[in-house]
Amino acid sequence: MDNEYQLIILGGGPAALTAGIYAARSRLRTLLIEKGMLGGLIANAEWVENFPGFPDGISGLELAGLMQKQAEKFGIVTLYAEVTGLQVRGRQKIVSTTEGDFIAPAVIIACGSERINLDVPGEKEFTGRGVSYCATCDAAFFKDRPVAVVGGGNSAISEALHLAKFSSRVTVIHRRDQLRASRIVEEKARSEPKIDFIWNTIVEAIEGTETVERLRLNNVVTGLKTDFPVKGVFISIGQRPNTEFLKGVVALDANGYIITNEKMETSVPGILAAGDIRANSIRQTISAAGDGATAAVYAERYLTG
Amino acid sequence: MDNEYQLIILGGGPAALTAGIYAARSRLRTLLIEKGMLGGLIANAEWVENFPGFPDGISGLELAGLMQKQAEKFGIVTLYAEVTGLQVRGRQKIVSTTEGDFIAPAVIIACGSERINLDVPGEKEFTGRGVSYCATCDAAFFKDRPVAVVGGGNSAISEALHLAKFSSRVTVIHRRDQLRASRIVEEKARSEPKIDFIWNTIVEAIEGTETVERLRLNNVVTGLKTDFPVKGVFISIGQRPNTEFLKGVVALDANGYIITNEKMETSVPGILAAGDIRANSIRQTISAAGDGATAAVYAERYLTG
Repeated sequence: MDNEYQLIILGGGPAALTAGIYAARSRLRTLLIEKGMLGGLIANAEWVENFPGFPDGISGLELAGLMQKQAEKFGIVTLYAEVTGLQVRGRQKIVSTTEGDFIAPAVIIACGSERINLDVPGEKEFTGRGVSYCATCDAAFFKDRPVAVVGGGNSAISEALHLAKFSSRVTVIHRRDQLRASRIVEEKARSEPKIDFIWNTIVEAIEGTETVERLRLNNVVTGLKTDFPVKGVFISIGQRPNTEFLKGVVALDANGYIITNEKMETSVPGILAAGDIRANSIRQTISAAGDGATAAVYAERYLTG
Repeated sequence: MDNEYQLIILGGGPAALTAGIYAARSRLRTLLIEKGMLGGLIANAEWVENFPGFPDGISGLELAGLMQKQAEKFGIVTLYAEVTGLQVRGRQKIVSTTEGDFIAPAVIIACGSERINLDVPGEKEFTGRGVSYCATCDAAFFKDRPVAVVGGGNSAISEALHLAKFSSRVTVIHRRDQLRASRIVEEKARSEPKIDFIWNTIVEAIEGTETVERLRLNNVVTGLKTDFPVKGVFISIGQRPNTEFLKGVVALDANGYIITNEKMETSVPGILAAGDIRANSIRQTISAAGDGATAAVYAERYLTG
């Protein structure tokens, strides 16, 4: 395997695959490096209704497969390896991996983010069948049904506000006795009649048969355990960008996301970022794919400029 | 027809339709205003190979139709009217149209840009059959074939450089005796053996039978008319953003494109922009669609924030 390229893409989700489609079609010598399977988080999505071009919806796994097929059709070269470091040496960038070092003037970082899971029984089993991590994606599936949101930050309360437009009742379950969300968001939620709160409480298990039917709750102050009936549970306890190896290389925001401009350029010329790993990304497949195309075009301009 | 909404989307192409899909799915009271037909420029594209999710390609018209169907499925309300003005009155924005005034706190501007045409016989007839306006989109269809690029600016010469990776010969036809492109781009093009130049020359007609076969050229200095055989011609004489009505409302760049950050926010809170009308947009369907989703999500955050 060659270790010199014009462009190296880190990641294998929609942002990386779309960057790959554009780069390969532009005949850039491109290497895509992914540690696991191609497809990214979207491959776990049971059903995607909001990717434009698929009015009847499509399963996340199928959509990811179509993107992979398209990138491969244009001849993308894929290496399965874990990226351990990125160094800048003049105009060249050196990507260190578990399979050796690779070098290119342009790098697109599209490694995504990992959602933080509850890690309780039933969570994995019912993902896509009542357990969700994205109200924008899945709220419409819970029209007139009671749901719970687990978490107390801005994201969790925004999810609850979004869900209140659809669901019959939205219960926010939070392990502490107050929210971490901003006051204005909290006030909105408190004045929304469909939203209520259960404080000082953790979810110990998610139970059901075909789909979610109830949560096993534990009040951490009183020790009281109860069953709480819901049709869906939205887990919103945070995301973790995969940027540990980038500290000191490109500018990150306080939460570790990569700061870019609207051209997907980072603080280092020739290093671009796309998708969920970017600060202020809306973490949607379509925006990640758009980012990937933009990053590939500006990577090419960097190479020819 | 109601004239108060939460969100008004201006435009009907991929950016506007995707914003519409997201907004309607988020149950924002949304009005989409388009002057002509839904679909935007993509509806004119003969064949689209680089929209992720369609590995076998898809016609632009079909892709536009799928997006429209999807937006309508989620209940988008569409008004066919021409937008004549946008005013900011406190938190409210007033959109003036040929069908009256409409008001909303949030507006997404996604009116796209018009490409400047040569306006010569054969141009319209052969669009998609040898006449193209986008090398990133269509270069791959001209592998090992001779093509021409019409224009002399940075875009035209970048198109020529891109085409040189595919085509057997790339001839830049320019009406003046020197380029307007930056020196570095010009030097690249001059050192590329596949690229040559015809100066002081305009295209008077594009001719062929099924597809393009030759250009009728006219040397504006000597008056000499010649036939020039090509399989394709890429017209790159400029784009015009549809932002006349926005002067003095939101910040525009020197060419009239709307300046946004990576959240698609303009200089005015509550006014966002998406797609080709944005400064630094790569003018691709996938990036326009991604922009539209991002704009809709940040419009919702503006409304709930």
